[in-house]
Amino acid sequence: MSEYQAPLQDMRFALQSLIDLEQLAALPGFEDATPDLIDAVLDEAAKFAANELSPINRSGDLQGLSWTEGEVATADGWKGAYSQFVEGGWNSLSCAAEHGGQNLPRLVSALTEEMWNGANISFALCPMLTRGAIEAIELRGSDALKATYLPKLVSGEWTGTMNLTEPQAGSDLSAVRTRAEPQADGSYQLDGQKIFITYGEHDLADNIIHLVLARTPDAPEGVKGISLFVVPKFMVKEDGSPGERNDVRCVSIEHKLGIHASPTCVIAFGGNGGATGYLVGEENRGLEYMFIMMNAARYSVGIEGIGLSERAYQRAVSYARERVQGVEAGVRGGGKVPIIRHPDVRRMLMLMRSQTEAMRALACVVASAMDIARLHPEADRRAQQQAFVDLMIPVVKGWCTENSIDITSLGVQVHGGMGYIEETGAAQHFRDSRITTIYEGTTGIQANDLIGRKIARDGGATAATVLVQMSEVASSASGASDESLKLIGQSLAEAVSALSASVDYVVANFKQDMRSTSVGAVPLLKLFGVVAGGWLMAREALAAQAGLSAASGTEATFLQNKLVTARFYAEHVLTQADGLARTIRCGAASALALADDAF
Amino acid sequence: MSEYQAPLQDMRFALQSLIDLEQLAALPGFEDATPDLIDAVLDEAAKFAANELSPINRSGDLQGLSWTEGEVATADGWKGAYSQFVEGGWNSLSCAAEHGGQNLPRLVSALTEEMWNGANISFALCPMLTRGAIEAIELRGSDALKATYLPKLVSGEWTGTMNLTEPQAGSDLSAVRTRAEPQADGSYQLDGQKIFITYGEHDLADNIIHLVLARTPDAPEGVKGISLFVVPKFMVKEDGSPGERNDVRCVSIEHKLGIHASPTCVIAFGGNGGATGYLVGEENRGLEYMFIMMNAARYSVGIEGIGLSERAYQRAVSYARERVQGVEAGVRGGGKVPIIRHPDVRRMLMLMRSQTEAMRALACVVASAMDIARLHPEADRRAQQQAFVDLMIPVVKGWCTENSIDITSLGVQVHGGMGYIEETGAAQHFRDSRITTIYEGTTGIQANDLIGRKIARDGGATAATVLVQMSEVASSASGASDESLKLIGQSLAEAVSALSASVDYVVANFKQDMRSTSVGAVPLLKLFGVVAGGWLMAREALAAQAGLSAASGTEATFLQNKLVTARFYAEHVLTQADGLARTIRCGAASALALADDAF
Repeated sequence: MSEYQAPLQDMRFALQSLIDLEQLAALPGFEDATPDLIDAVLDEAAKFAANELSPINRSGDLQGLSWTEGEVATADGWKGAYSQFVEGGWNSLSCAAEHGGQNLPRLVSALTEEMWNGANISFALCPMLTRGAIEAIELRGSDALKATYLPKLVSGEWTGTMNLTEPQAGSDLSAVRTRAEPQADGSYQLDGQKIFITYGEHDLADNIIHLVLARTPDAPEGVKGISLFVVPKFMVKEDGSPGERNDVRCVSIEHKLGIHASPTCVIAFGGNGGATGYLVGEENRGLEYMFIMMNAARYSVGIEGIGLSERAYQRAVSYARERVQGVEAGVRGGGKVPIIRHPDVRRMLMLMRSQTEAMRALACVVASAMDIARLHPEADRRAQQQAFVDLMIPVVKGWCTENSIDITSLGVQVHGGMGYIEETGAAQHFRDSRITTIYEGTTGIQANDLIGRKIARDGGATAATVLVQMSEVASSASGASDESLKLIGQSLAEAVSALSASVDYVVANFKQDMRSTSVGAVPLLKLFGVVAGGWLMAREALAAQAGLSAASGTEATFLQNKLVTARFYAEHVLTQADGLARTIRCGAASALALADDAF
Repeated sequence: MSEYQAPLQDMRFALQSLIDLEQLAALPGFEDATPDLIDAVLDEAAKFAANELSPINRSGDLQGLSWTEGEVATADGWKGAYSQFVEGGWNSLSCAAEHGGQNLPRLVSALTEEMWNGANISFALCPMLTRGAIEAIELRGSDALKATYLPKLVSGEWTGTMNLTEPQAGSDLSAVRTRAEPQADGSYQLDGQKIFITYGEHDLADNIIHLVLARTPDAPEGVKGISLFVVPKFMVKEDGSPGERNDVRCVSIEHKLGIHASPTCVIAFGGNGGATGYLVGEENRGLEYMFIMMNAARYSVGIEGIGLSERAYQRAVSYARERVQGVEAGVRGGGKVPIIRHPDVRRMLMLMRSQTEAMRALACVVASAMDIARLHPEADRRAQQQAFVDLMIPVVKGWCTENSIDITSLGVQVHGGMGYIEETGAAQHFRDSRITTIYEGTTGIQANDLIGRKIARDGGATAATVLVQMSEVASSASGASDESLKLIGQSLAEAVSALSASVDYVVANFKQDMRSTSVGAVPLLKLFGVVAGGWLMAREALAAQAGLSAASGTEATFLQNKLVTARFYAEHVLTQADGLARTIRCGAASALALADDAF
């Protein structure tokens, strides 16, 4: 059973070729984030992922979780791994120094996050949710809340959750019914039930801090009447340690297709004395605050897709090298060969590889923009980068996760019959990936966010600036003398026009006919991802070509392989662009014509 | 929990609009196969699927199978359902009358087979394998073998299996090692182990008849030294009843991603006295005979994809009608609506629906061609139809199954978070579908069969005749006055040129460079499926339009909906054609360039 190995060489190449690392280290507070330090962190993270998280991935899937009278026991080895995670400082990597964090760029923690997810997505979900809780309290919590909760959440001694969903309120949070009654001491008593709460209950940490959406008694209806509360599992004593149990219970856990080792809980607030909660920020602005967590979480779910894809790729490659079956196509009298020699197996591996690299490149560029958007001294630059981040979050989330289903499915396919046997491990990645297009907003929700708030609202202005950058890269590559670069450039140029025409279509039609335009939302999200991936693969290919003359040995081989992989992406993935664009422009009438009862 | 309902209206429309039912009934032996009789059979089958097979689908998935000392117990209710299946005569529907069959067209049993798979694929696998055993014995078995085995296999009292795979011999059957030693009495003693044997052991029937590939002592190496044997679980007594146990044991069963209620067995032949087997046909021609079963099985696996897609569609529609979430896009102040009103949900449902209808149409046309190829009095006509069947079998198998993964995945997605919870049922279809692109030859194997034996070998001649038919339909539709038909025709015409150019490319390049051409094999298979589906949806649309003037009420609504669905297919599915064609023509160099150790 192979263990996950972090793709350090490709991660480092993405940093070198796509990111201005000097500019990054020049951001206030990032003085220590030198290339050497980043390298060292990635090396250590790779070891932790391979040695501690990967070995308990399959056992966690098999053993799952046990629920006994409200307590959830994680699988064997999980408590130990989590303590080591906390002790190693991995939880606090890119948290603010003032709360005990290490203040490293989001770019760095994005790469370590890919590793945690590649090694063990069920484990990685726990710190991912904690991060969301930290961000909400950091940005909108009172000083008292910050002092009480942030240090322990940042260290990872305590973990966090996001409590949004209720049975009648999934994608539509306006339907949230959980009540929060103000008390004389300034706290609130919460009453209600939440479902699908990831790591809502577990035995990994001393306390669990729930961030909960609820309504105060006089709140307006709909999304404008939702407030955000901190509700700890254990009340916090004066000395900061966990005290008596709050009235928060895990009523049950779900039996899911995948992520078996990650508890998905039904959580009941109140009913036995009352669940004490504390308001975050102002009343009725909870949804706005929740979106702070949500946007961060959406980016992180995109990273899950990348980690899972990389893991599936590695497992498939390893099998394809070992499995001997058949002779080489077109060769008579030759011996039997490992299946990696078969053209269709190579096609599948290249599809997995090229798209995973493209997604990683996009995730890096967006993470770096997050850092600049937060810390750059110039407000214009911050705003410009934030607009880019906002535009790309639904693409990272939607495209990387949709791809991960296809890529983990290819991983099963490479294994043939063995892929369908659970023992092999390939099927787990496929099952695990299937949630990623659903939670933290389905692909449909991401796509509507993309076409409405991110493209139509500013009349396509932010998208246009990205399209200009894409076109410039296409021109550079088209104008190169290298044959592969030329082909990559031409393919990218065509794909960029297809995207550009689709963006124009959305801008021109969204306000007059939101319903029809929305039919093309998911195709547009996919198109945006496909083209963004092609853009960044082309940038990496240009950098690889530029670096080749001075490179030798394994470095030269890596650069040559990058050129090949980018060309494969151009020929096998970018070629989808025009078909998607046509669907966006012409596919509404037929999609909306049937009566509801005709289905 | 909704039960499966056979899509009778669409099945009947496919028969009326695509099949010459008079010609069918005029084939020798099919005199009874009148439209009225076919209708009645489909009605009864629909009831059996809904009332007997669908209710034990989820419970079978949950309970799975138990293996105890070589015996496999099926889930509760399965024995009863299987007896009813046999009593109802469902096993013998299209078997020859001389062995007790009902001699109905394959077209009819293809439709009932879709129903069994839609209701319960794990159940449907059992008669599917029996059919393969019947066909091999019928076509190549001695009179003695026929007399001993066929009546009980045809009735379904006994079931059949295909024993091909060994640990070192999966896709590559030349590596089969199981030995068959001739005995003085004309029988053989078999010795070896087979894996992945569907229904290799179970408690549904009185006997299990294994069709086994093995090598005789002096057999040449490779595929030319494989023979086919009948090896019964229980030896058959003089009176035809099962006697003593043969030396055939189920050593273990696999734990799989899906089809949990269908036993996938490791079967050991010999080792305790010797497994007695009987040669089918001549020695060393086993692979050729096995392909008789295999081709029938490949078609049937394609049908599995259609049944699963229909089931996933029905479940998603039912959920989308019930689940209320959010308000209508672009409508201010409206109430909350069922999610079927949301454009992206409709897009997903239409993708599921339109592709399922297109696949069903293709399966019908191919089944009808099988009937003509077997029974038409004119040899030319038989040969021509057989060539069409041979060309389309890999397309039916590969395209319908690859689609079924995507379609059942969309089924999960429509359910949102509930789709990921096993209790909901949508995830089971997704898990079940994942095997269909693997067994009976992976999609890669189908695609190589398509480009090599089915397209390149006859210089593209058979494909060309199909392309001509496709073009004619595109012209008819383009020339219609109805706007939808016109659009469908134009879209089809473009897709047909893309396919035509790709076929030409394969014909021109396959012999000189099989390796490079093979990179485009799976894209070509998908392209062929996409275009064939578009061709038949266009034929159905033309028939719908023609029928509209005389129709009223629900019939008129059905015809209008068919036009809408065909147009959706043209706008959302046929639009992929050009991208696939480009990949076929230009994607080889990059796919094959990396060194094996560079992955």
